Amino acid sequence: MIVVLEPGATESQVEHVIKILYEHGFDVHRSTGVRQTVLGAIGVRPDFDHRQIELIPGVAEVHRITDPYKLAARAFRREGSVFDIGGVKIGDKGVVVMAGPCAVESEEQINTIAARVAKSGARFLRGGAFKPRSSPYSFQGLGEEGLKFLRAAADAHQLKVVTEVMDRSQISLVEKYADVLQVGARNMQNFTFLKELGKASKPVLLKRGMAATIEEWLMSAEYILSGGNSQVILCERGIRTFETATRNTLDVSAIPVIKKKSHLPIIADPSHGIGIRDKVVPMARACIAAGADGVMIEVHHDPDHAKSDGAQSLYPDQFDVLMKEIHLIAQAIGRVIA
Amino acid sequence: MIVVLEPGATESQVEHVIKILYEHGFDVHRSTGVRQTVLGAIGVRPDFDHRQIELIPGVAEVHRITDPYKLAARAFRREGSVFDIGGVKIGDKGVVVMAGPCAVESEEQINTIAARVAKSGARFLRGGAFKPRSSPYSFQGLGEEGLKFLRAAADAHQLKVVTEVMDRSQISLVEKYADVLQVGARNMQNFTFLKELGKASKPVLLKRGMAATIEEWLMSAEYILSGGNSQVILCERGIRTFETATRNTLDVSAIPVIKKKSHLPIIADPSHGIGIRDKVVPMARACIAAGADGVMIEVHHDPDHAKSDGAQSLYPDQFDVLMKEIHLIAQAIGRVIA
Amino acid sequence: MIVVLEPGATESQVEHVIKILYEHGFDVHRSTGVRQTVLGAIGVRPDFDHRQIELIPGVAEVHRITDPYKLAARAFRREGSVFDIGGVKIGDKGVVVMAGPCAVESEEQINTIAARVAKSGARFLRGGAFKPRSSPYSFQGLGEEGLKFLRAAADAHQLKVVTEVMDRSQISLVEKYADVLQVGARNMQNFTFLKELGKASKPVLLKRGMAATIEEWLMSAEYILSGGNSQVILCERGIRTFETATRNTLDVSAIPVIKKKSHLPIIADPSHGIGIRDKVVPMARACIAAGADGVMIEVHHDPDHAKSDGAQSLYPDQFDVLMKEIHLIAQAIGRVIA
Amino acid sequence: MIVVLEPGATESQVEHVIKILYEHGFDVHRSTGVRQTVLGAIGVRPDFDHRQIELIPGVAEVHRITDPYKLAARAFRREGSVFDIGGVKIGDKGVVVMAGPCAVESEEQINTIAARVAKSGARFLRGGAFKPRSSPYSFQGLGEEGLKFLRAAADAHQLKVVTEVMDRSQISLVEKYADVLQVGARNMQNFTFLKELGKASKPVLLKRGMAATIEEWLMSAEYILSGGNSQVILCERGIRTFETATRNTLDVSAIPVIKKKSHLPIIADPSHGIGIRDKVVPMARACIAAGADGVMIEVHHDPDHAKSDGAQSLYPDQFDVLMKEIHLIAQAIGRVIA
Repeated sequence: MIVVLEPGATESQVEHVIKILYEHGFDVHRSTGVRQTVLGAIGVRPDFDHRQIELIPGVAEVHRITDPYKLAARAFRREGSVFDIGGVKIGDKGVVVMAGPCAVESEEQINTIAARVAKSGARFLRGGAFKPRSSPYSFQGLGEEGLKFLRAAADAHQLKVVTEVMDRSQISLVEKYADVLQVGARNMQNFTFLKELGKASKPVLLKRGMAATIEEWLMSAEYILSGGNSQVILCERGIRTFETATRNTLDVSAIPVIKKKSHLPIIADPSHGIGIRDKVVPMARACIAAGADGVMIEVHHDPDHAKSDGAQSLYPDQFDVLMKEIHLIAQAIGRVIA
Repeated sequence: MIVVLEPGATESQVEHVIKILYEHGFDVHRSTGVRQTVLGAIGVRPDFDHRQIELIPGVAEVHRITDPYKLAARAFRREGSVFDIGGVKIGDKGVVVMAGPCAVESEEQINTIAARVAKSGARFLRGGAFKPRSSPYSFQGLGEEGLKFLRAAADAHQLKVVTEVMDRSQISLVEKYADVLQVGARNMQNFTFLKELGKASKPVLLKRGMAATIEEWLMSAEYILSGGNSQVILCERGIRTFETATRNTLDVSAIPVIKKKSHLPIIADPSHGIGIRDKVVPMARACIAAGADGVMIEVHHDPDHAKSDGAQSLYPDQFDVLMKEIHLIAQAIGRVIA
Repeated sequence: MIVVLEPGATESQVEHVIKILYEHGFDVHRSTGVRQTVLGAIGVRPDFDHRQIELIPGVAEVHRITDPYKLAARAFRREGSVFDIGGVKIGDKGVVVMAGPCAVESEEQINTIAARVAKSGARFLRGGAFKPRSSPYSFQGLGEEGLKFLRAAADAHQLKVVTEVMDRSQISLVEKYADVLQVGARNMQNFTFLKELGKASKPVLLKRGMAATIEEWLMSAEYILSGGNSQVILCERGIRTFETATRNTLDVSAIPVIKKKSHLPIIADPSHGIGIRDKVVPMARACIAAGADGVMIEVHHDPDHAKSDGAQSLYPDQFDVLMKEIHLIAQAIGRVIA
Repeated sequence: MIVVLEPGATESQVEHVIKILYEHGFDVHRSTGVRQTVLGAIGVRPDFDHRQIELIPGVAEVHRITDPYKLAARAFRREGSVFDIGGVKIGDKGVVVMAGPCAVESEEQINTIAARVAKSGARFLRGGAFKPRSSPYSFQGLGEEGLKFLRAAADAHQLKVVTEVMDRSQISLVEKYADVLQVGARNMQNFTFLKELGKASKPVLLKRGMAATIEEWLMSAEYILSGGNSQVILCERGIRTFETATRNTLDVSAIPVIKKKSHLPIIADPSHGIGIRDKVVPMARACIAAGADGVMIEVHHDPDHAKSDGAQSLYPDQFDVLMKEIHLIAQAIGRVIA
């Protein structure tokens, strides 16, 4: 923590601040300049509330210097994390594509889509069995039956399964069927849930909250990592801004920022970020070009009759073209499609 | 839903759109102007995904017209809702003040503060027993013991209790001790939790999510109301914007907006919105002046040694001055302090 | 500037950073902790681009410590600035009310409104002669004729005049008629214009840009102050957020923040911030309660036929009720209406 | 305009609304459903303030349906605009790269950089002669001398010139030296300036304002187009959000959105959006992958000693690698580098 004193702070004010810092267990280094005094407070309390110091008379500004996360920081594993999920490596040179419908609607639907996306080159099948809907009057998913259909369809086409867990109480159920547990944007700061995920046996795909800073997102990853689960995959899905032409604003720049700050793999979900089919393709390409380790794409064989989010789902033929394009883009930056 | 066709849409495109609307069960009214055709689609499906129509060739724009919430709408109870909570009315002419520490730290601490805030005129005691902290390394609350201390302190000073429930599994426990169940901003769209709160026997204080629009906030209230719990109190606590001088931007204008759109009472929590003591007092006054039905204020007898959020807690003497000021402000707009 | 080195930075990296800081003319104070080294770089270059240091190998973070503004800072005039504008003091104990139509439409219109607002207690008459409209097809104002009508109406009713200058080339013209030169939100960072306003002979009312941080706003004030014009009044008018229920989000908390950071008077304009009449009254009250030195309110005797922004203009009777309410609110916090 | 009446609106309220719409010159089409009445108001007044109707008793919601811009709309030129600027086509199959320093600092500096970027494949030289700086104490540019150096360096290396005009009064001067007149983000809604640019003889590169919606940006383009200048190139440069890890959030999705809504070419400026060198390269690639017609990149041969924005400038070698990568990305999506 750096404490900057006001230009006119008196010597007794400075000494009072130093005394309080000592009481809180900090080592204090004092720099007295011509105009101002600056204190460096070095300590071991990552959760110290620096506003307490800000309120002391004579203090102008306080800057926190310790990153609040440690296990999620790039410094923890310089070379970057690679997770091997049943033979599919994420975080490595290969870009991983996850595809499937918004929701599992029936055995036939998920099987049809699985066949198509596998043929185009996807490695993971996505699809929700529990749907968090903003209206209590909307379709809420098939539950465990949906998980069974999803697993069977994935197995039939050599795909891995990623699907959302909505609640602490669902973890053990979903773990039976999924290869990766997806945590939705609205749960990114559900801390009791994150703690439980720290004990889960499967990797977690952690979506960024709609209003979460990158630092908060990494802090949420830290919750899971500190619980003992070292496999966290980050997923950018759009942040809320004043722009209304798109549902959210996909923060593509989060990809290079995360690559610098953290060792964790990062993928992007342009379907939810953009919310309308015709912009999903260019944005998926953009994310690969920016260095994402993967993309998650909604695909539906009959989007006009999808039970949810059909408008943002690609037709299988569009998905096929997209796969060919991102194959070339990956090559352009020295990567391949996993 | 209003469907606006493109200026150059052909007759067969228009007819195709009408056909699809019929298939989805809508009544369609057509208005053909000189430049454009507009379709009014009247139906009973509040959850229809209007983007499906937006993608049909010839369609320029689609506007949803049915409010997605019904039970939370002002039209549902024109005169406004008033809840009588053990003799304290909220939503009525009286402005209700809730005060107390961020977290219950000990029996003595909560009792000391309860005595002070009761003396100044507060009607509710607040204080967290379960703390959702963004760092896994921070103080997490006293749990059930904290609830007991809180209830006892409130009873000793004729106060009601409002305290946070963090999770579905805690509802029945917290109901035993609290008069009002507080739902934090991060849980505002935890839909499985909201559904359970719909069955709770106690009123719910629903904080606005940090990035939630007013419409989404009312939709979350709808979840609880539609579950059978008719007592929802809204609480504005600040939204996330680009401004960094304050922790969040307290959206004071949400107060008059909610008063127009909904019959539910609305209070404000300036302590969390602003995050630093010296701005809490003016903002609390502003919220009363804007028409809030109450305010929730953090007060601590020794904020410099508080276990959490001391920097945003008022000293008891500051709280006392604030009570006198808001007493006069309430009078200025034809209200009283409850 | 505080330079925080990475935990694993080598001694030669630290020395390299120190060397570069010296080359840029900084005094360097080094603090070596157990985990990290921190450098305090004290210098006199307020415009130094700290990102240059951020890019040096071994550097983790850089924090600027010198406030980029000096003349606008509270430290420059602890007691707060009070400007006497033709006998009306702003920044003093008295709260100043400015009222009038969005645009001057005719001699009769401005005179009718001036009579009404003066009778209710306003001290300034507002009204635009040059209108910055977002559509090239909208009413653009009466120009100099409008300024003449405005001045005459104000003089007839003992009011001062505040009106917008849109451009460097208009300054000398508007100065002939106005007591205060208003700078619109869209011009807040038009730096060539701000420089010219530094040489103007009249006080400047500087509106906050729709996406400007409080720091940037004060920096724009600094431009004017550093040019030699010491009379700058700040005006909060709403910032852009994701909320769409209101045109902008009036940042009421900017009022106490400015009061702490700067000595300049601050007023609020709820009419533009909220954009619809029925919310203007509660928000005007809120701003006074939060400590604003004044409010600017749009009032029109026939808003249904106003040429611009009628929807956000109060009827004269509403304005009269508002004046009575804010009179009481000002008293509640130890102030009066000027 | 679509006017939705409240569910309980009376027949006389409906008739009153219809009467007012007629008075304002609208054709009215009425649709009476079981629950609600909806009015379609078709007219020719793009600037009508729909809030006037929103305030009439019985009205629930009003939706504007006429796009406020016409000349900028895709419907105006379905096939997309292509501008030939001295032999370099923008808006066509070829992706145009503009590169150069933030500011022209000396004859030698601009010449050195021009040689390097031309060799790597850039077609335009960028560089500011007038710098809008947020601090009055910063370097403000070389003025006309800078323009001369810029033109000479461009001519020597077969490049076109794009440079910023800050003010109405500078247009004729800058037109003498530049091929494209750049309008900065802070001037995007300087309407008197936009009108003058409508009469300029050179194409205009219009940067998006930091808090401007895509609709407002197109509306600003409309100002220039309606003045008679049909050559407007849009430039995305980042919007302000709550995220602080990057200077701004580059809204990559604006690229496909603009491609659908408008016929105007769109390029992206990742250097200003991101603000730090190591993220500029991935973001430039992302913009090409998303379908941009070009990118503008800051390049400096000695960024550590640049007079402004060195931290966001690429080294020439980095720029060279970037050119090779975007060459392949352009091919991947069926385009070429111009």
